[in-house]
Amino acid sequence: MRRTRVPPAGPEDCGAAGGLLSRRILLTSAVAAGAVGSPARAEPLTIPPWMTTPGSPFTPYGQPSRFEAKVVRVITNAAAPGTGSSRTPHHRLNGVITPNGLHFERSHNGVPDIDPDGHRLLIHGMVKRALVFTLDALARYPMETRQAFIECGGNSAAMYAKDPVQGDVQQLHGLVSCAEWTGVKLSILLDEAGLDAGARWVLAEGADAAAMSRSVPLAKAMDDAMVALYQNGERVRPSNGYPMRLLLPGYEGNMNVKWLRRLKVTDSAVMTKDETSKYTLLMEDGTSLQFFFPIEAKSIITHPSPGVSLKGPGLYEVAGLAWSGNGKVARVEVSADGGASWAPAVLQEPVLPKSLTRFRIAWQWDGGAVTLQSRAVDDTGYVQPTRAKQIAERGSRSIYHFNAIAGWAIAPSGEVKHVYV
Amino acid sequence: MRRTRVPPAGPEDCGAAGGLLSRRILLTSAVAAGAVGSPARAEPLTIPPWMTTPGSPFTPYGQPSRFEAKVVRVITNAAAPGTGSSRTPHHRLNGVITPNGLHFERSHNGVPDIDPDGHRLLIHGMVKRALVFTLDALARYPMETRQAFIECGGNSAAMYAKDPVQGDVQQLHGLVSCAEWTGVKLSILLDEAGLDAGARWVLAEGADAAAMSRSVPLAKAMDDAMVALYQNGERVRPSNGYPMRLLLPGYEGNMNVKWLRRLKVTDSAVMTKDETSKYTLLMEDGTSLQFFFPIEAKSIITHPSPGVSLKGPGLYEVAGLAWSGNGKVARVEVSADGGASWAPAVLQEPVLPKSLTRFRIAWQWDGGAVTLQSRAVDDTGYVQPTRAKQIAERGSRSIYHFNAIAGWAIAPSGEVKHVYV
Repeated sequence: MRRTRVPPAGPEDCGAAGGLLSRRILLTSAVAAGAVGSPARAEPLTIPPWMTTPGSPFTPYGQPSRFEAKVVRVITNAAAPGTGSSRTPHHRLNGVITPNGLHFERSHNGVPDIDPDGHRLLIHGMVKRALVFTLDALARYPMETRQAFIECGGNSAAMYAKDPVQGDVQQLHGLVSCAEWTGVKLSILLDEAGLDAGARWVLAEGADAAAMSRSVPLAKAMDDAMVALYQNGERVRPSNGYPMRLLLPGYEGNMNVKWLRRLKVTDSAVMTKDETSKYTLLMEDGTSLQFFFPIEAKSIITHPSPGVSLKGPGLYEVAGLAWSGNGKVARVEVSADGGASWAPAVLQEPVLPKSLTRFRIAWQWDGGAVTLQSRAVDDTGYVQPTRAKQIAERGSRSIYHFNAIAGWAIAPSGEVKHVYV
Repeated sequence: MRRTRVPPAGPEDCGAAGGLLSRRILLTSAVAAGAVGSPARAEPLTIPPWMTTPGSPFTPYGQPSRFEAKVVRVITNAAAPGTGSSRTPHHRLNGVITPNGLHFERSHNGVPDIDPDGHRLLIHGMVKRALVFTLDALARYPMETRQAFIECGGNSAAMYAKDPVQGDVQQLHGLVSCAEWTGVKLSILLDEAGLDAGARWVLAEGADAAAMSRSVPLAKAMDDAMVALYQNGERVRPSNGYPMRLLLPGYEGNMNVKWLRRLKVTDSAVMTKDETSKYTLLMEDGTSLQFFFPIEAKSIITHPSPGVSLKGPGLYEVAGLAWSGNGKVARVEVSADGGASWAPAVLQEPVLPKSLTRFRIAWQWDGGAVTLQSRAVDDTGYVQPTRAKQIAERGSRSIYHFNAIAGWAIAPSGEVKHVYV
């Protein structure tokens, strides 16, 4: 009954051992073992209860199925209500876009309830003329739409720990999300204000109770920065900066200042509390790396992963997410033999810069113990480092910008555990 | 105070009159008249009330701001609760993706409350072996992710009326939405079932109380059809087919059968109630066009549009959506002089096939009465027709597949009305 048309796996096939396959192969009934029914089981068709009665009426604003109640953000590091973060459940999602209800949150003093009619954006400082924008005023400017990931500088911080913290993708790596953002390029607004000679930085300040503030290099502000007004088509969500946020594609999350109310052009960085007391990388010698802005290339396997177990040997698709704050993901490689050999995964087109990229590779699991890991390379040539290399270079006193290779150990039972590789 | 650096508009500039500009020009303070404040007004900064108290705590599943309560689907044509449709408010959105809560709905007997553990997909009929799939079984297959619009065959039906129906973009054209879909290519599943010689069609049946059923040409099923499991990253919403729907990129909406439970391979179309009593185009002579599947090239200006008025003369961005079920949008042209001249709009990259495409063009409004219209051309060379041409060819007894050019008349007051052009 069970046919197997799996091509031989091995170095001559895909450059990697451990069952990784060189391309999307035609799957056979072997994959669906136990799931494929016989014709006798299939017919006559039974009528499920939900076909026997009229369904629910239309709703003005839709919600997920009640059977998906577990697919929610988990709240972590909340020192006080609204001070901390909540994380995206990537192990329960697929594709590239993060739906707005599940975009990660990082707030320093809660989510403000901003009346958009009362909100203003001020551009001032070293400019020819200070400008104040209402939402109506911004609506007349040229807009652009782009997909971009945002990752908290503190994502994956647990991997600085000496021993692997047991958690799932959401708990360990859930402070990254991806959305389609629409708004006005910041360079247009700064050009209109007119930059003074000597202008080098822009202070961005949020209208939350923490007045979250970061200094942004003017070069970035004039490059691809955006005042984002829409997130996946609708107005930016309150937890993501309603009614407007700064979008700095590829830069660490908190610099993408939410509830943006002020941009002050300056000649030097302002050294706000949010860039001195936090978001610096403490080195072994006690000095700190400050202004470490772009997120370097990184990847995470989401399927399988802790909590997303395997159900018996056979064919699977290994899938995950890769990204780089410095450009496009050029390739992702997957290893199923502890890093001895690597096979190229398929990247979902279109691959967009500074966006999440979904990668996938077919894999024949023989039912034995195995460790899966992924390695991203971006179009600058940067290769996602091993954890050993990252710790050797940077020490382990920091909690920011961890982007080294992560590993999942699969047990013969199909259960998945976090391991260092 | 008000500088104007608007380049001269005219045939030699952008090929069109009426104030349309050839490219995204650098906007000046003229655009923000009334919105740009003086430095005196800008400083000292006032502290809004939401900065004086801690904000809200984190939420497991986020929602829009309470100030966006009007941004909802409107329910139309509801013969009974859950029988009819609800429409996307494109005049209040921007970008390309439709957020899941606002994706249009069309249901024939309500939204079923399906327990995913009890749901099965059966593939049977003219196949070598009937197959039954659980969600777990499908999760092991190779997935793909693609953006695609879905448009109800009855969208824009009001434009068959003799006189222009007054409504906004949502009421007139809101039965089209766009999402990122992830799932298993149907061709993989049909290959696994093994097609019999003589197989030509596939009957797709939903698990709703209407058992919505359509016949799909096998060629389409083997081309780019997908069993979609995820919508914008999360599980397909109940109103869009939870836990799985058929996605037939570019084909009229109802063929993308929601709550998909059965695919029966046949040698001919089955002539279900849903393809005989509905979704045929009644011609003037009393005959009907049946099996008119792909959505032909179409475009709609969303900004400005009825309800999205202009606030005084000056520069604006005219923006809208274009799409084609036969491929990519090749170009969109905008006219501000009743169709005498047309200027090319900027298409937001990446332009994806069978997806919504956002177009934009700068426009200098002189404050006079003017009519705006847009015209899409797809990469097959098909040009969106005028309404006169479409009615001449097809008559006006149908309510389906209206895709002709639509017009908005701007009054000197800035108000926008629906007009035939």
